[in-house]
Amino acid sequence: MNFKMIFHTIGQVLIVLSAMLLLPLIVSLIYVEWMSVIAFSVTAVSSFAVGMLLSALSATKRSAIYAREGLIIVSLAWIVVSLVGSVPFVISGDIPSFTDAFFETVSGFTTTGATILTDVEHLTHGMLFWRSFTHWIGGMGVLVFAVAIVSRTPDRSMHILKAEMPGPIVDKLVPRAKDTAKILYIIYIGLTVLLMILLLCGGMPFFDSVVHAFGTAGTGGFGIKNNSIAGYNHYLQWVIAIFMMLFGVNFNVYYLILIKKFKTAFGSRELWIYIATIVACTALICVNMYSSFSNIADLIRASFFSVSSVMTTTGFTIADFTQWGHLSKTILIILMFVGGCAGSTAGGLKLTRVIILIKKMGNELKRIIHPRAATIVKFEGKRVDDDTLHGVSTYLAIYIVSFAIILFIISFEQSFSFEANFTAVASCFNNIGPIFDNAAGGGTFVNYSVFSKLLLSFSMLLGRLEIYPLLLTIVPYTWMKNK
Amino acid sequence: MNFKMIFHTIGQVLIVLSAMLLLPLIVSLIYVEWMSVIAFSVTAVSSFAVGMLLSALSATKRSAIYAREGLIIVSLAWIVVSLVGSVPFVISGDIPSFTDAFFETVSGFTTTGATILTDVEHLTHGMLFWRSFTHWIGGMGVLVFAVAIVSRTPDRSMHILKAEMPGPIVDKLVPRAKDTAKILYIIYIGLTVLLMILLLCGGMPFFDSVVHAFGTAGTGGFGIKNNSIAGYNHYLQWVIAIFMMLFGVNFNVYYLILIKKFKTAFGSRELWIYIATIVACTALICVNMYSSFSNIADLIRASFFSVSSVMTTTGFTIADFTQWGHLSKTILIILMFVGGCAGSTAGGLKLTRVIILIKKMGNELKRIIHPRAATIVKFEGKRVDDDTLHGVSTYLAIYIVSFAIILFIISFEQSFSFEANFTAVASCFNNIGPIFDNAAGGGTFVNYSVFSKLLLSFSMLLGRLEIYPLLLTIVPYTWMKNK
Repeated sequence: MNFKMIFHTIGQVLIVLSAMLLLPLIVSLIYVEWMSVIAFSVTAVSSFAVGMLLSALSATKRSAIYAREGLIIVSLAWIVVSLVGSVPFVISGDIPSFTDAFFETVSGFTTTGATILTDVEHLTHGMLFWRSFTHWIGGMGVLVFAVAIVSRTPDRSMHILKAEMPGPIVDKLVPRAKDTAKILYIIYIGLTVLLMILLLCGGMPFFDSVVHAFGTAGTGGFGIKNNSIAGYNHYLQWVIAIFMMLFGVNFNVYYLILIKKFKTAFGSRELWIYIATIVACTALICVNMYSSFSNIADLIRASFFSVSSVMTTTGFTIADFTQWGHLSKTILIILMFVGGCAGSTAGGLKLTRVIILIKKMGNELKRIIHPRAATIVKFEGKRVDDDTLHGVSTYLAIYIVSFAIILFIISFEQSFSFEANFTAVASCFNNIGPIFDNAAGGGTFVNYSVFSKLLLSFSMLLGRLEIYPLLLTIVPYTWMKNK
Repeated sequence: MNFKMIFHTIGQVLIVLSAMLLLPLIVSLIYVEWMSVIAFSVTAVSSFAVGMLLSALSATKRSAIYAREGLIIVSLAWIVVSLVGSVPFVISGDIPSFTDAFFETVSGFTTTGATILTDVEHLTHGMLFWRSFTHWIGGMGVLVFAVAIVSRTPDRSMHILKAEMPGPIVDKLVPRAKDTAKILYIIYIGLTVLLMILLLCGGMPFFDSVVHAFGTAGTGGFGIKNNSIAGYNHYLQWVIAIFMMLFGVNFNVYYLILIKKFKTAFGSRELWIYIATIVACTALICVNMYSSFSNIADLIRASFFSVSSVMTTTGFTIADFTQWGHLSKTILIILMFVGGCAGSTAGGLKLTRVIILIKKMGNELKRIIHPRAATIVKFEGKRVDDDTLHGVSTYLAIYIVSFAIILFIISFEQSFSFEANFTAVASCFNNIGPIFDNAAGGGTFVNYSVFSKLLLSFSMLLGRLEIYPLLLTIVPYTWMKNK
């Protein structure tokens, strides 16, 4: 195990994090919120100091790292970043309990958007900004960011990029990982700025626009109002709904558009299946909820917004779909698990995986009838290799078993119903955010115990990093010598 | 497609079914229930006549059949048997609606035990006997029975045996399928008779003993009292609980005991994991429900009975576990999906599959760390071959997707909660029987619509035949020429 390299990278991540903390610090200064200024300054300085120390102490000649170190680095980086990121909430007194602050920060970085706050409106501007900014950083990946800025050796970065990017297949857009990371961030920043401008044009205040653009881009879901997006005008709701959908698309598509390969970009099967799924589910919910809305524009907006929000695992709301019909609820729960496209900021199983699984099932049926016939699975015009195929079905298995175990452990909380616990775990594990059952705390996680909050934080990280990195970090096998 | 052979076999199945209908006919005669006598006579005679006609018209020289025909035969046989088996209920007027009668019969043959009857005690003895007898037939397999009696060609029978026997790996106990089927039935009959005697010794009336032995052996769950087993004495409850557990064991174990290979029999890993799971879950539920019971013997009995009943997917009850703590409920719901051992009469995913999946997950973790290391999955001392490994994970995928689709369709029923629908589908698909939510009809399916009842009947068949045969029968690909 290359401990030096691990510490060194964690150190670098802390330095980058301290730089990021300057943004909410500036916001706090602008709004003259002294407690927040102190909180962010203290955290930024400490983070910088520890980061420098770690980097310096473990300075090493740049050696290649292996998959194992890559996975451990990713897991530890996410845990460390969440721990440090929660400090400002505690220092400023906005969220006095450290567990709660940690839950909130993990929820932020993992772009879940689950909250323990029953009244977000009493938070300072600095804290609200930080909360949403964590979404934006986490959406593209804490380390991808670090890689884009800091890394100089291509062979070590790819392991990290692989572990942090959602989906079964990671395309290197360009040969060097660092360049890939940069291109991804350029697209990400471009779309975020565009969204911000469109929100400003619709009359949303500047601060609100920035924060909501972050929440949408990271498919996170933290808002700054207790009623999420419901209080904004219809134009703004439409803009956010459409952009949630856009951020659920594989970023490769945007890259292809950027380099003018339109035919390849719009030839993506995943893209069209994604759009078709959203349209079909929206239509079904419209039919289901037809009688509950007085006018058809409201009906379509509420349905589309909810589908887009849930499928991309964002979690913004404009209507209380806990009160909707059972068909609508079931559609939304199933979408929670499907998730957005691979290579997007969305969570869940990822559409690509679901498509490959369904194709594999079709193949299995053919194979049973014709045991000797050669059957291959094709996707996006290419043959899916056996490793990916088996990887996808093993991932499903590991996903289901993890889900069942977490659900089992959380059931030790006696006070909530099966539906409440099921949706709470589904919501955290798939990085969605809001929970259905209001008995458990009006859509928030405030009433869960300390143990459950930590377990759910773990679930969010597990879901965001697609299980393996974190799981490998906690099994002893990984740490054994010379293995 | 070898249609002649398909019709011929279905004909033979109908003849065997008509012979089986003589048993409830005799029961009806003994209890002087004329309506039932008429119902069973008419059905038996018609079934025999149609069976003879089909057999005779499609008489053919015995040609080998392929996997495709084998699967279609199994699916059609189960559907035909369920259709014919529901006729007596309709003729006698005990269940006037044909949909309800079909649901009840499918539930019987698939050993589910889900019912649409809110008051079973008003049924005649003949009908009660038939209901439970379908469990007993369905437990071991409608066609395995036919194979054991009728078949003369070994190569055609194995496909059928494979399709009907639960679990990922079908061991031929002896080279010829017919002999395997006979051995299985001898063990099955032996255990059933033993149970019957033990129940009689405990003071259960003769009729009740026979019927409950059938329900337990098939891991079905139809009772003859509205409160299931709760009204019987503690000894009888213990006997049934233990035998439910025994019928959830792989029948290979009994065969090995029978031929005195004790070491191999008790060396089965699956057996010990099965026992350990039952013990552990019982203990957890005991701890969880400690405060709700006044005496410890009641607590242990209720916990063990429920775990044994749910894990073997039988569905008998002695306590209303819908009122139990959430931890207990969650444990029971998870067990619903795990199911009993492969090669038993139990439903669910089957323990073997779950074990193989978990081992495969462990392997995947190792493979990520050491991409080039050769990793193999071992089970029961042997290497699990790649085909089985991929088969198991594809099965899980197909299982989850089927579950989601059925849950989605059933949600068109507006009146029930997500939990009610979820457990209803879980219950039918895993062949368990009772449902948790009492709002949907006191544990029965009486309030579901005609469409939903048919869908749930389909789910029960899908679960019992382990998805593939039925799925293949309904996809057009199977019916294409020269494929």
